[in-house]
Amino acid sequence: MTFTLNELAKHVDGQVDGDDECKIEGVGTLQGAQAGQISFLSNSRYGKYLSNTKASAVIINERYQSKCPVNAVIVDDPYCAYAIIAALLHPDKPVSPKGIHASAVVSDTARIHDQAIIGPLCVIEDDVTLHAGVIIGPGCVIGRQSSIGENSRLEANVTIWHDTQIGKRALIHSGVVIGADGFGIAEQKNGHWIKVPQLGRVCIGNDVEVGANTCIDRGALGDTVIEEGVKLDNLIQIAHNVHIGAHTVIASSTAIAGSAKIGKNCKIAGAVGIVGHLEITDNVVVTGMSMVSKSITEPGVYSSGTLLEKNSSWHKNAIRMKQLDDIARKVKKLGSE
Amino acid sequence: MTFTLNELAKHVDGQVDGDDECKIEGVGTLQGAQAGQISFLSNSRYGKYLSNTKASAVIINERYQSKCPVNAVIVDDPYCAYAIIAALLHPDKPVSPKGIHASAVVSDTARIHDQAIIGPLCVIEDDVTLHAGVIIGPGCVIGRQSSIGENSRLEANVTIWHDTQIGKRALIHSGVVIGADGFGIAEQKNGHWIKVPQLGRVCIGNDVEVGANTCIDRGALGDTVIEEGVKLDNLIQIAHNVHIGAHTVIASSTAIAGSAKIGKNCKIAGAVGIVGHLEITDNVVVTGMSMVSKSITEPGVYSSGTLLEKNSSWHKNAIRMKQLDDIARKVKKLGSE
Amino acid sequence: MTFTLNELAKHVDGQVDGDDECKIEGVGTLQGAQAGQISFLSNSRYGKYLSNTKASAVIINERYQSKCPVNAVIVDDPYCAYAIIAALLHPDKPVSPKGIHASAVVSDTARIHDQAIIGPLCVIEDDVTLHAGVIIGPGCVIGRQSSIGENSRLEANVTIWHDTQIGKRALIHSGVVIGADGFGIAEQKNGHWIKVPQLGRVCIGNDVEVGANTCIDRGALGDTVIEEGVKLDNLIQIAHNVHIGAHTVIASSTAIAGSAKIGKNCKIAGAVGIVGHLEITDNVVVTGMSMVSKSITEPGVYSSGTLLEKNSSWHKNAIRMKQLDDIARKVKKLGSE
Repeated sequence: MTFTLNELAKHVDGQVDGDDECKIEGVGTLQGAQAGQISFLSNSRYGKYLSNTKASAVIINERYQSKCPVNAVIVDDPYCAYAIIAALLHPDKPVSPKGIHASAVVSDTARIHDQAIIGPLCVIEDDVTLHAGVIIGPGCVIGRQSSIGENSRLEANVTIWHDTQIGKRALIHSGVVIGADGFGIAEQKNGHWIKVPQLGRVCIGNDVEVGANTCIDRGALGDTVIEEGVKLDNLIQIAHNVHIGAHTVIASSTAIAGSAKIGKNCKIAGAVGIVGHLEITDNVVVTGMSMVSKSITEPGVYSSGTLLEKNSSWHKNAIRMKQLDDIARKVKKLGSE
Repeated sequence: MTFTLNELAKHVDGQVDGDDECKIEGVGTLQGAQAGQISFLSNSRYGKYLSNTKASAVIINERYQSKCPVNAVIVDDPYCAYAIIAALLHPDKPVSPKGIHASAVVSDTARIHDQAIIGPLCVIEDDVTLHAGVIIGPGCVIGRQSSIGENSRLEANVTIWHDTQIGKRALIHSGVVIGADGFGIAEQKNGHWIKVPQLGRVCIGNDVEVGANTCIDRGALGDTVIEEGVKLDNLIQIAHNVHIGAHTVIASSTAIAGSAKIGKNCKIAGAVGIVGHLEITDNVVVTGMSMVSKSITEPGVYSSGTLLEKNSSWHKNAIRMKQLDDIARKVKKLGSE
Repeated sequence: MTFTLNELAKHVDGQVDGDDECKIEGVGTLQGAQAGQISFLSNSRYGKYLSNTKASAVIINERYQSKCPVNAVIVDDPYCAYAIIAALLHPDKPVSPKGIHASAVVSDTARIHDQAIIGPLCVIEDDVTLHAGVIIGPGCVIGRQSSIGENSRLEANVTIWHDTQIGKRALIHSGVVIGADGFGIAEQKNGHWIKVPQLGRVCIGNDVEVGANTCIDRGALGDTVIEEGVKLDNLIQIAHNVHIGAHTVIASSTAIAGSAKIGKNCKIAGAVGIVGHLEITDNVVVTGMSMVSKSITEPGVYSSGTLLEKNSSWHKNAIRMKQLDDIARKVKKLGSE
């Protein structure tokens, strides 16, 4: 795909500073881009590469305009503009062949739109509904009575259990498991555990992305809910009856325990742990590897954990941590003497 | 399935307070249940919903009997009783078709009981044994010489490597990998690593549940052992030669390093890390995100980590943590002045 | 396979102390080995088992020579020697049948070496290249234009996305996802997120091992790079544009955020978190469950986190941690009075 700089700028409400007619056919980093490519500057950490870039054009905000040695597209938010322009220049390859691959095992009672694509070696169980434009990658299994909305895409080897609802334009990456039983067990007097039937579903809104090998368990009673626009990274655990508000994003390897309710527009970093049966309000940011063990009722940035140091000094300090209450009492006593 | 309240009560050794003949056909939460449904009250956090419930009956213990506005089943342990009643009212749907799906690739030397079910697009290698009542979901791969006990069930896309032993009534969720090589590598003088052959097996007892995308590695020498009644949540790592005692339960995203030995009836919360070559005695509880770096020889509840706070105050405190040994020495000196 | 002790010793440059002609046909632990088996002593924790071993021979270093009650092979590094000898005595079983399984779906444009093996129910997309000696286990999916080097092996149910490069002698375990989209999203003014196209690749060097259910995302712009000799355990997250230097090893459940650059010969323990856009120099060791939030510029051992204690005392100390900056200020003031 080739565009003029002017055409690209129009797509992102940007102003061209330089040659309107410059031909652009791809994207690149400030350091790596070559003639014919457009780059962008968003993270100021990379500002030092602007002066030497060989890109034909750079997407920047006004602040950098005077420092840009090549054609520029001036926008308020260069990263969003880059995302749009990169998608124009590098559209997804069309999937072929169309239709249902001969090797797929598809139930007679499944309702498959004639604009849906089912890849090789998939299993589509009874009463599944696939809407127009759905693409199911190779090796996926979709359980009975599940429904997948228009233009959603499952990459290879995704597993969707029965009665799962997925909205429009979802992107589900390989290895994801949606709708497995939640971890519902009841302890008997003798210390043995009995299984609590997991009778709810998973309901996922529109425009949700789920990263590779992430697990979203079905509800015990009632549903596990992922609202529209949520973006989940890889290897995340979403337990039964969790509710995630619209447009919240969660980074890799975070674990969320049962019945936790997370608000809208939250940003949860990687490897965070969230305890069950609590509530996090809207617009909360939790930094990496923090443990959330109480509800969060005010928007803001929250953290736990300790900072990295050389092992030798860490060990001395960590031992003192076990004496901290004693130390605090001594300080109090000394202060009152 | 429909039962009278009296029939249900008999299954859980409970007493009916109210209409013995009330018809029950499903379960629901205290807040969500409708006529014809039975609910339960176990976690006192939900006690506030009892007075307005629209359920036809509620499973409660004696303490709540006077406050229950509808029919009640009185038991000692409402959650266990609920688990049993919910399973009666909502039995698993029978899997169909029976037998071995035509698309499965099954070795001639595999011994498949005629009451076992193998779903579409499975691969069953040489000398595998599947006992009566085993159900293998779509897309599973079972390696040579593995054996799966009576009435065990593998959901879709499970991978079992060669020589794995699984007991009766196991439930293995999608994406689980059992029997992959342990992380056995030896460092040579030049800093390169050579692989240590992983020659042991994975042996799993009866009544074990394994959550989605959990990994259980085979032993290096000798076996990785999961005793009977163990319940594992999703995305857990069980390294080579780990031994987990009977009826221990482990929540999601916990990682257990090689040759750790965990006792019976332990409760390990989510995102816990357990170092290798240590021993945890029976009846130990480890709270969420704790790191176990030494053996635990006494039953009890154990924790590590710090509490969540606003990022601004966290950062100040975390910097002080790196000075803690110095602070402690100063306090000691001040106290002795 | 049977060898004389002398033959085995020659393979590892070892000296036999005892019967050169002793026949060895397998390996075992010091405690479990029987006649005909060879064991090893590497971790001094197991030294107590040497005096009672029933092994026919033990691989040890000089230090233990006088205490060994049976035949010995004396080497500098018993664990490396054991790895080599175990591989001789227990070679991998040859995979059969050879060639491409009839149930695999293989593109006409794929270049499959006639010494490559493709298992049942695999999908090999357009323009994939599989070199001599490659083994693809059952249920794998390999995306278009990917290339897998000589003698590499994928176990069952591995997913490789398009344009991935894998070197020679790789071992990729079940459930691994290589080349899924990185977590690239841009926040718009209205709080909604748009996807940033992930246009890079994953490039993996020779002699790399990747553990079960680990994820390695493709680059956003430019590639995610795993250099030669890297060994990754299970359930690890490698985000887009991460670069891991040669011969670095990473244990289970560690998460590495985008564009982090990790040096050569590092040892990263389990459940570590590494923040994005930082650099870790060569020869760094990070202990289990640590969080790396800044670049590490000097080799050494690094840690964060706190030590396990009984929950009751932990809770008191954890509350004081939130007061630590105040405590430190009080101590300073007291010291200056």
